[in-house]
Amino acid sequence: MADPPGTPADQPGTPASPPTTSLEGIAEFDFGRAARRGYPEAVLCEGKTMEHLVAIARAIGERGRSDGGDPLGTILFTRASASQAEAVCAELPGAVHDPVARIVAWPGPVPEPSGGTVLVLCAGTADIPVAREALLTAQHLGRPAELVVDVGVAGLHRILARVDQIAAASAIVVVAGMDGALASVVAGLACAPVIGVPTSVGYGAALDGLAPLLSMLNACAPGVAVVNIDNGYGAGHLAAQIAASA
Amino acid sequence: MADPPGTPADQPGTPASPPTTSLEGIAEFDFGRAARRGYPEAVLCEGKTMEHLVAIARAIGERGRSDGGDPLGTILFTRASASQAEAVCAELPGAVHDPVARIVAWPGPVPEPSGGTVLVLCAGTADIPVAREALLTAQHLGRPAELVVDVGVAGLHRILARVDQIAAASAIVVVAGMDGALASVVAGLACAPVIGVPTSVGYGAALDGLAPLLSMLNACAPGVAVVNIDNGYGAGHLAAQIAASA
Amino acid sequence: MADPPGTPADQPGTPASPPTTSLEGIAEFDFGRAARRGYPEAVLCEGKTMEHLVAIARAIGERGRSDGGDPLGTILFTRASASQAEAVCAELPGAVHDPVARIVAWPGPVPEPSGGTVLVLCAGTADIPVAREALLTAQHLGRPAELVVDVGVAGLHRILARVDQIAAASAIVVVAGMDGALASVVAGLACAPVIGVPTSVGYGAALDGLAPLLSMLNACAPGVAVVNIDNGYGAGHLAAQIAASA
Amino acid sequence: MADPPGTPADQPGTPASPPTTSLEGIAEFDFGRAARRGYPEAVLCEGKTMEHLVAIARAIGERGRSDGGDPLGTILFTRASASQAEAVCAELPGAVHDPVARIVAWPGPVPEPSGGTVLVLCAGTADIPVAREALLTAQHLGRPAELVVDVGVAGLHRILARVDQIAAASAIVVVAGMDGALASVVAGLACAPVIGVPTSVGYGAALDGLAPLLSMLNACAPGVAVVNIDNGYGAGHLAAQIAASA
Amino acid sequence: MADPPGTPADQPGTPASPPTTSLEGIAEFDFGRAARRGYPEAVLCEGKTMEHLVAIARAIGERGRSDGGDPLGTILFTRASASQAEAVCAELPGAVHDPVARIVAWPGPVPEPSGGTVLVLCAGTADIPVAREALLTAQHLGRPAELVVDVGVAGLHRILARVDQIAAASAIVVVAGMDGALASVVAGLACAPVIGVPTSVGYGAALDGLAPLLSMLNACAPGVAVVNIDNGYGAGHLAAQIAASA
Amino acid sequence: MADPPGTPADQPGTPASPPTTSLEGIAEFDFGRAARRGYPEAVLCEGKTMEHLVAIARAIGERGRSDGGDPLGTILFTRASASQAEAVCAELPGAVHDPVARIVAWPGPVPEPSGGTVLVLCAGTADIPVAREALLTAQHLGRPAELVVDVGVAGLHRILARVDQIAAASAIVVVAGMDGALASVVAGLACAPVIGVPTSVGYGAALDGLAPLLSMLNACAPGVAVVNIDNGYGAGHLAAQIAASA
Amino acid sequence: MADPPGTPADQPGTPASPPTTSLEGIAEFDFGRAARRGYPEAVLCEGKTMEHLVAIARAIGERGRSDGGDPLGTILFTRASASQAEAVCAELPGAVHDPVARIVAWPGPVPEPSGGTVLVLCAGTADIPVAREALLTAQHLGRPAELVVDVGVAGLHRILARVDQIAAASAIVVVAGMDGALASVVAGLACAPVIGVPTSVGYGAALDGLAPLLSMLNACAPGVAVVNIDNGYGAGHLAAQIAASA
Amino acid sequence: MADPPGTPADQPGTPASPPTTSLEGIAEFDFGRAARRGYPEAVLCEGKTMEHLVAIARAIGERGRSDGGDPLGTILFTRASASQAEAVCAELPGAVHDPVARIVAWPGPVPEPSGGTVLVLCAGTADIPVAREALLTAQHLGRPAELVVDVGVAGLHRILARVDQIAAASAIVVVAGMDGALASVVAGLACAPVIGVPTSVGYGAALDGLAPLLSMLNACAPGVAVVNIDNGYGAGHLAAQIAASA
Repeated sequence: MADPPGTPADQPGTPASPPTTSLEGIAEFDFGRAARRGYPEAVLCEGKTMEHLVAIARAIGERGRSDGGDPLGTILFTRASASQAEAVCAELPGAVHDPVARIVAWPGPVPEPSGGTVLVLCAGTADIPVAREALLTAQHLGRPAELVVDVGVAGLHRILARVDQIAAASAIVVVAGMDGALASVVAGLACAPVIGVPTSVGYGAALDGLAPLLSMLNACAPGVAVVNIDNGYGAGHLAAQIAASA
Repeated sequence: MADPPGTPADQPGTPASPPTTSLEGIAEFDFGRAARRGYPEAVLCEGKTMEHLVAIARAIGERGRSDGGDPLGTILFTRASASQAEAVCAELPGAVHDPVARIVAWPGPVPEPSGGTVLVLCAGTADIPVAREALLTAQHLGRPAELVVDVGVAGLHRILARVDQIAAASAIVVVAGMDGALASVVAGLACAPVIGVPTSVGYGAALDGLAPLLSMLNACAPGVAVVNIDNGYGAGHLAAQIAASA
Repeated sequence: MADPPGTPADQPGTPASPPTTSLEGIAEFDFGRAARRGYPEAVLCEGKTMEHLVAIARAIGERGRSDGGDPLGTILFTRASASQAEAVCAELPGAVHDPVARIVAWPGPVPEPSGGTVLVLCAGTADIPVAREALLTAQHLGRPAELVVDVGVAGLHRILARVDQIAAASAIVVVAGMDGALASVVAGLACAPVIGVPTSVGYGAALDGLAPLLSMLNACAPGVAVVNIDNGYGAGHLAAQIAASA
Repeated sequence: MADPPGTPADQPGTPASPPTTSLEGIAEFDFGRAARRGYPEAVLCEGKTMEHLVAIARAIGERGRSDGGDPLGTILFTRASASQAEAVCAELPGAVHDPVARIVAWPGPVPEPSGGTVLVLCAGTADIPVAREALLTAQHLGRPAELVVDVGVAGLHRILARVDQIAAASAIVVVAGMDGALASVVAGLACAPVIGVPTSVGYGAALDGLAPLLSMLNACAPGVAVVNIDNGYGAGHLAAQIAASA
Repeated sequence: MADPPGTPADQPGTPASPPTTSLEGIAEFDFGRAARRGYPEAVLCEGKTMEHLVAIARAIGERGRSDGGDPLGTILFTRASASQAEAVCAELPGAVHDPVARIVAWPGPVPEPSGGTVLVLCAGTADIPVAREALLTAQHLGRPAELVVDVGVAGLHRILARVDQIAAASAIVVVAGMDGALASVVAGLACAPVIGVPTSVGYGAALDGLAPLLSMLNACAPGVAVVNIDNGYGAGHLAAQIAASA
Repeated sequence: MADPPGTPADQPGTPASPPTTSLEGIAEFDFGRAARRGYPEAVLCEGKTMEHLVAIARAIGERGRSDGGDPLGTILFTRASASQAEAVCAELPGAVHDPVARIVAWPGPVPEPSGGTVLVLCAGTADIPVAREALLTAQHLGRPAELVVDVGVAGLHRILARVDQIAAASAIVVVAGMDGALASVVAGLACAPVIGVPTSVGYGAALDGLAPLLSMLNACAPGVAVVNIDNGYGAGHLAAQIAASA
Repeated sequence: MADPPGTPADQPGTPASPPTTSLEGIAEFDFGRAARRGYPEAVLCEGKTMEHLVAIARAIGERGRSDGGDPLGTILFTRASASQAEAVCAELPGAVHDPVARIVAWPGPVPEPSGGTVLVLCAGTADIPVAREALLTAQHLGRPAELVVDVGVAGLHRILARVDQIAAASAIVVVAGMDGALASVVAGLACAPVIGVPTSVGYGAALDGLAPLLSMLNACAPGVAVVNIDNGYGAGHLAAQIAASA
Repeated sequence: MADPPGTPADQPGTPASPPTTSLEGIAEFDFGRAARRGYPEAVLCEGKTMEHLVAIARAIGERGRSDGGDPLGTILFTRASASQAEAVCAELPGAVHDPVARIVAWPGPVPEPSGGTVLVLCAGTADIPVAREALLTAQHLGRPAELVVDVGVAGLHRILARVDQIAAASAIVVVAGMDGALASVVAGLACAPVIGVPTSVGYGAALDGLAPLLSMLNACAPGVAVVNIDNGYGAGHLAAQIAASA
C-alpha cells in the first residue's frame, strides 16, 4: 500500500483537496432554518461517520456560542448510537442524552412550553423508543406533551379510558407496529389531527413496518396522516407545528 | 371414486381430439368430497369458459338426480357472473342465484341449521358482497348465520353495541378492506375464533386488498386467522366447520 | 332458475330477512360524528352499488330535514361517478356536484370560512382533480382555501414565486405524482405543516402512485405527513382540522 | 455529557416524570383478558428491553400470587431469547422454559386437557421450533395435542400414513416453509379446520416466508386459514379455541 | 393536422425512411434458428400491430415456399387473438388455429412423433388453455404428448391414479395456479424432469400468478424448474428438448 | 341536481373563481426552459383532460406566433391518444403526428441535424413504438438519429452485425422488454454511453416492465443508465443532450 | 427456573414424550426415494440444529451400512456450514467436504459417469460457489460435468469462444447474478435445455437475486427454465436427470 | 472427514481438476476492454473470496508489467473492504486506497484530465462515500471532476448557490437517498445530462434505496437517467464517457 493509512488526501496525485474550513466537504448546516421555518435543523446521526458527526457538532457549538445564548434554538441529534451520543456530548457541554429515544439535545433543558398539548399514544411496550422520540421532540420544540403507553386495540378498554385526554389534545401522535389499527381507532374518537407513526415492531408479514404503514395510510377514519416507519422525530416535529397555534 | 377412470392417455397424439364422455378433458369433479371431508366440492366459476361450466353443471345434475334426492349435499357455484349464473340455473332446475354474493346454490333452499351460530361482521357497505358470500356459504353448509354490516372502527360505538351478539357466536367472520382494523378489535372482544377476510375495497395504497391482508395477519390480538382477499366462500366454509360441533 | 330475477330474498328457504328500516342491512351512518369529532361523516361512493348509495343519500336527507336546517353540517359524497352524482343530487335537492373533483356536497353552498388559510399546491395539470378534491373539502369544512397549479420542481421559479403565499398559509396540501419532489421542496420553505398527497399520475415505475408515496414518506425536510394515493379528501379534511385554530 | 449515564429522567429540565407504580409508563397488562376472552394475555418478549420485560414478569407474579393460586391461567412468554427466558424464570419461580419453542410458561405444568385434539403437522425438520410453539401453546391452553414432523409432500406416503390421525383431530395446524404445499394437501384429506403457519424456512425466492404464506392463502382446498409467518403461538391459540367445544 | 392519417413516413421532414424490403424496420426473423438450435423461431403475436404481424407471416410464407416444402420446420404463432389468428391464417394457407391454446401452426399437421413422451398435467379446468399451449407446442416440435386435466391436490386420489402415466413420461409439464402445489407433489412421485408453469388463475393474493410462481420455485422436491407465468409455449418447448433423446 | 352540468364554477357558493387568462388554474407552461436548459418543455398528454390539453396547445400557439417564427424550438406532445393528437393538430397548424410513436411535433419538420449520431436499438418488434418515440425525440431536438429493430440477444448474430454502427454512435438508446439483456450486451461492445429503456413488453413475471428495468439497472457492463419504463421520450432527450457536443 | 437447562422433555408436566427411535420427532428420512425417483434424498443443512443434523447423519450411516455397500446411492448434505460439515463427516467416515460448494457427499468418491455431459457456465467469479454446487451435484448423481467460469456478457467473446462446448452438452446450467443476461444469450446458442440459476450476487436493485430471477424467467430465447436463487443443488439435480438418457 | 481441510481438489475421486494457469477456474479478465470500449475493466471486490481476489490482482500486475508501463489504463478495485484493499495493495505496489470511497486504483496517480468537467452533487453527508466513489472513478478515467456535498432540497438556497457550477459542467452526477428529489431539481436547472445515483441512506420506507430509485426514475424533468443503488462507480464511469468529447 503506497500511502499511510488514513491520509489518502495528502498524497500527491490523489484527487481530493483538503478542506479549508471545518465543514467544507462534509456538510452545509442550514443555520438559517429556524429563522425561515420556525424550528432549527436537526442532525440525523445514523449513517454518518464519527469524524463527520463530530465536525458537525463542533461547528454547531462554535456558531451557537458565537451568537451568545441559544439563538439557534435547541439542536436535536437523532437516532444516535451510544458512542455517537457520547461523542456529541463531549463536543457540546450541557447536552442531554436520552438513550431510549436515542436523542441528544443541546442545550439540554426543555424550553418553557407554549401552545396546545401534544399527546403521544403507543400501542405496545416495544413501541416506547419511537414514542419517546416523538415526545421529546415535541417538548424540545416547545410544546407541552404527554405519553401514554400500551393502549393497543386488543384490549379496547385501555384506549377508551383515555377519551378525555384525547379530547384535550391539540395534536395526537399514534405509534404502533403490527396491524397499526390504533391510528384508525383514535382518529374515530378525536377532534385533533392524528399523526400515525408505523413502527418496525412485529415479524414476518409485518415486513419491517410496511404492514402498519399501509394500514395507517388506509385508515377508515379521516384526519390521519402518516410519517416514515419509526420516524418519531418527524411525528413530534409535525405535532409541534400543529399545536403551536392552538 | 365412482366415475370411470380417465383414459385420455389412450388417445393418439393428435392435439384436438373431442372428449368422449361429458367431463373428460374438462374436469374430474370430486364427487367423493362430501363423504371424505363432510362438505361437497364447490365450483369456482371465474376463469372457466361457458362451455366448460355448463358441462360441469350438467354432470352434477345427472349425478345428483341419479342418486335420488341430494346425497351430494348442496353444490355452490361461486363468483358467478350474471350470464354464468343464468346458464347454471338453466342446467339445474331449482337452483337459486344470489346476485350480490354471486352464488348459485343447488338445490336452492338452505338446509335445516345445526351447530353453533356463525356471525359475519363487515366494516363497510362496499364489503357487503363478500360478507354475503360468507353468510350464504355458512348457511348452505348447515349453520345458523347472521350478518351485521357497516360496523367499522371509525365509529367504535357501532361494534361495541354488538358485544352480546359477538359473545354468543361460535365462529366469527370479519370482512374488511382498507385498514382491516376491525379484525383486531373484534378478536380483542371475542371468545370465538375469528376468520378475517380482507377485501379489495379501497384504493391506492390499499393495493387491491394487500393492506388489510397484512394488517389482519399482524392482528395484535390472538385468535385471528386469514383467508385470501375477497374469499367470502373460504371464510364461510371454515366458519361452518368450526361451528359444527359447538 | 327457480326465482324471479332480482328478488332472491323473497324466496322461501333463502337466508336473508328483508330490512325493516331504510338502512338496515346496508349501513349504519355515523350521525353522531359531527358532535363527536367536529366534522360529519362523508360517503365514499366508489365501490357502493347504486341501490345502496341512494338509500344512504335518502336517509341522510330525511335525517337532515327532520333536524331543521343542517345540524349535520355539510355532507360530502366523494369519488362519485357521473351517474352516482346524478342519483345523489336527485335525492338531495340543493346538492352541488363538482365533476372534476368528483364531489357532491349537500347542502351545496360552502359555509362562511373561519380559521387559517389552507393552501393547496399541485405539481402538474394532471393532478388537478385530486387537488380540487382537497380544496373543496377544506372549503366545505369551513376554511378559506386557495389552489395553485403546475408548480412542479422541474421549473423551480414557479414555486419560488409563491413563497409569500406559502408563508401566509396555516396548512399546506401538496399534490404530486411521479417523483413527488414538490413536498420536500415546499416543506423546506414553509412554517406550516405540509400534508403530502401522492397521485397516480405517471406511468411505469411510478407504480400507480407508489413512487411519490415513498418519496414523500422519505421527505428530507421534516414537517411532512402523507395520506393515501389520490386521497384529496383526506388531505383537505386534515388541513381543515389543522387550520381550524390558527 | 451533562447527566450521569442511565438516569436522564432524574435531570432537571428533562421531560419524563418517574413512574409511580411498577408498570406505569411501561405496560398496561390486560389482566381481564382471561375473563373476557377465555384465555389470558401472553407476553411477546421479542422487541422488549430486559428492564421492561422483567418489570412485566414481576407485576404478573405479584398479581398472580395475590389472587391465590393461578386465577390468571397460564401466562406464556413467547419468542424469548435465552437470556430473556432466564430473567423471566428468575422472577417467576415454577416457570418452565422450552428453548426449542422459545416459550416460558408460568405456572409450568400443563393443565389437565379438555376438548378435542389439536394435531400439529410440520413439513420439515427445520420447521420444528415453530411447530413446537404451536404444540405447547395448545397444551397450555388446555387441549390434548400431538406433533408429527417431517411429512412434507415430496414423499407423499408420509402424510398418507397419517390419515387416521388427521381424521381424529378437532383442529389441525400445518407448519411449512418453502412451497407451503402441505396445507392444501392436508385440507384435502381432513374434516377439521386447518390453520396454516408459513415459516421462514427456505432461502432466495422463499422471501423469508412470503412464498409459503401466499401459497397457503391460495390453498386450492377450502377449510384453510393462515396466520403470520412463524406464528406458532397464534396458530396454537386459535386451534385451542376451535377444539374447545369438540 | 398537416399530414394524411397513416402516412407520416411519406412526409417531407419526417425522419423515417421507407423500408426497402418486406421486413426492414419491422423484424429480423431468425430463419437460421432451426439449423442452429434444432427448433425454429416462434412468433409471439401479443403486443404486435396487425400490420407488423401480417408482414412477418408473409415473409415466413415466402421463405418457406421458396425453400420447397417446409425446411423451416413448423412455425408457431403464439398468444394470438382471434383476429390475429385469422389474419395469419389468411397469409399462410394450410395453417391451423387452436383457439383455446391461442396457437396458429404452419404447416398445420403435427409431425410424426419421435423421442420420449411429454406428459402435461393441469391442476384445474381454468388452467386448460395454458396446458393445451404446452401440449400443442410439444407435439408440433415432434414429441408424443398427452394432457391430463383437473388433478389438483385438493383431491389427491386424482393424481395418485396417474402414477403409471407419470412413471412412463420422459418430461412432465405441471400447469397450476393458486397454490401451485401440484408441482411439488408430482416431482415427489416422478423420475422425469418436471417443468412448472404457474398460471394467473386465482385472485387476490394469487397476485396474477406470483403465488404459484414462488411456490414452484421453492418446490420441496428437487427436479423442478419453472418458466414464466402462463408460458405454456416455453414449457412445451423445453419439454420437447428434454424428451428428444429419451 | 342544483347546477347546470359543466358549469359548477358559475354557481353562487361554489369555491373556484373563474380563470382570467387562458392558462390560469390549468398550467404554468415553462416558456423559459429552452433558454435555461437548451431544450423546450414537452407536453405529456396522458392524464390531461381534453379541455386542459387544448388550452395548453392554444397558449403555446399564441406564444410561438407572437414571437415570430419558432423561438421556442419544437414543442413535442408525447403519449398522445388519437383524439388528443387530432385536437392538438387542430390548434397548431403545421404540427405533425406520428401515430406509432404517439408524438405530435410543432412545428412539424425536424430541424437540421447537428452533433453526433444517436443510435436507437430495439430488441423486438413490439418495442418499436417506444423506440420510435426515442428516435423522433432525438431528431426533433436536433440530432442525426437511426433506428435498428429486432436485434434481441436470442439471435446474437443480429447485434454482432451492427458493431460498426455501434462504434460510430455518440449515444446509444437500447429499448427492450422481457429480460432486458440487450442493454448489457450492447454496453459490452460500445464506447458510447448507453441509455436503457425497459418496456412493458412481456407478460407474467415481466411485471409490466419491472423485470427489464431491474435487469438494466444491474447491467454487468458499466456505461449504462436507465430511464422509466416505456419512456422513449426521456431516453431520446438524454441521448440528444449527450450527443450534442460530439 | 424449575427444570435443569436442556432437559425440558424430562420434566413431569411437560408435554413432549421422549423419542423412542433415533429419528422419531426429528425427521422421516425418505429412504425409498432412490428406488422411487432414481436419486436419493439430500439433506439441506441450513436451518437445522446441530443435534437434529447429527441424528439424521447417524441414521443414514446406520441404514447405509446395514444394507451392505451403498444401495442408497450418494447422500448429499447441502448448504453445510463449516461446523455442520465437520459434524457430518465425523458421523460418516469416508464423506468428502467441498467448502466452496458447501457440500458433504457420502460416500465421497464420485461414481463412474454415465449419460450426456452437464455443462455449468457462470457469469462471474462471485458465482463460483453456486456453480460448483451444481457441478458436484451433477457429478455425484452420475453425470460427466464441466465448469466454465467468468463468461459474462459484458465481454461477449468469452462465451462465443465456448460454442463448441455448448453444442456438445446434453444439459446446460447457467449461473448468474446481477442482470442474469447470460441465460438468454446461452439459450440462443444452444440445442440443449438450459437451467438458469439466479444468484444473490450484486447489490441494491439486484434485490438479493430477484433481478436475475425475473430476467431469466423472461428469457427472450425459449428453452430456459429457472430454479430458486442460489439453488445450485436443484439445478445440478435437474441437469443430471435431463442428461441421464442422452 | 476423509480429506485434509482446504485441499478437496487433491483427493482421488473428487471432481475438480487443478488449475493450470493462474486465473483458470477463477476468472477470465477482459484485458481487451480498454482497446474495445475505451476504458479498462474494473474489479468488483464485494462477493469475491480473498483467494480469488488476490489471484486476479496478481494476474493484472503481471500483465500490466509485462506490457511495459500501463497500457491497460488505471485498474479500479471497487467496493473493497479494508482487508481486501490491503491485500490488493500488497500485490500491486503503487496502488492507492481511498477508504471512504472503498476504491483501490492501480497505478495510483490520477491521469492528466481531459474533456469536460464532471460535477458530483450529493444531498447529504451520509451520501459522501458513494459520491466520492463517483468522483474518483471519473478522475481516474481522465476527467476533471468536482464534488459538492450536502445540498439537499430541504434548504434550497444551497443548490441555488451552485447554478454557475451546474451550468459549467459537461456531465452531472446527483447522489441522494431518502426522497431522491435533488435529481429532479438539478435537472430542471441544468443543460448537461444528469446521472442519478440513489443511495441506501435512509430507513423504513426508504426500502434500502428503492424510494429514491423510483423517485429518480420518475423525475419530472427530462435529462435524467439512473444507475443502481449506491453505484457510484457506474455513475462516474458513465459521466466520464459523456464528458469525454465536451
